[in-house]
Amino acid sequence: MIRHTVAFRLVHPFGSPEETEFLDAGRRTLAAIPGVEDFVVSRQVSAKSDHTFQFAMSFADTAAYDAYDGHPDHQGFVRTRWLTEVAAFDELDLVALD
Amino acid sequence: MIRHTVAFRLVHPFGSPEETEFLDAGRRTLAAIPGVEDFVVSRQVSAKSDHTFQFAMSFADTAAYDAYDGHPDHQGFVRTRWLTEVAAFDELDLVALD
Repeated sequence: MIRHTVAFRLVHPFGSPEETEFLDAGRRTLAAIPGVEDFVVSRQVSAKSDHTFQFAMSFADTAAYDAYDGHPDHQGFVRTRWLTEVAAFDELDLVALD
Repeated sequence: MIRHTVAFRLVHPFGSPEETEFLDAGRRTLAAIPGVEDFVVSRQVSAKSDHTFQFAMSFADTAAYDAYDGHPDHQGFVRTRWLTEVAAFDELDLVALD
C-alpha cells in the first residue's frame, strides 16, 4: 500500500470562491480515478509550512499508482488546473513500515 | 482531529544500523507519549522528495498536540537525537475537510 500525498499552496486568496472550487474539482476529478482509495482533502494549519492544503490518497501498489498517474483525467487536471492555480507543492509517497 | 506529520532525512547511511536504531527509538519514545494516536513510521519512496522517512501521528485536538509538544520525553528526544541525527525535515499539521 502506498499513501500518496501532495501539500500545496494556491495562487487564489485564502478562503476565496476560487479556492473552494479548486478543492472541489480536485476531489471530484481525482477521487473518481480507478485505483484511488481513501481520498482526503485537508487544511494544513502549521505555521512551520507555507503549504495550506493537502490531497492524500492510497494505492494498492506501484502499478495502481502508475495507472492513476497516467490516467487522462489526472493528466487533464494537472494541465488545466494544477499548473496554473498551484503556486508551490511537495509530493511524498509513503510506505508504512512494521 | 489533527494529523501531525514530519518527513525527514537522517545523517546516517541509508539502511545502516544507526538508521534502524533511530527509527526504533522514535517509535518507542514518541508513540508512548499521552495523547499520541495512530503512530506510523513510513519510508518515503518518491524521487520527487529528498526525505526518506516520515513519522505520522494523530491528536484529538490542539490541546493534546500542545501537551505532546511540551512533554519531557518529546523535548528530550528532540534534544538528544533529532537535532544531531536529522539532516533535514518538513512538518505538516493536517485537519481533514468534509
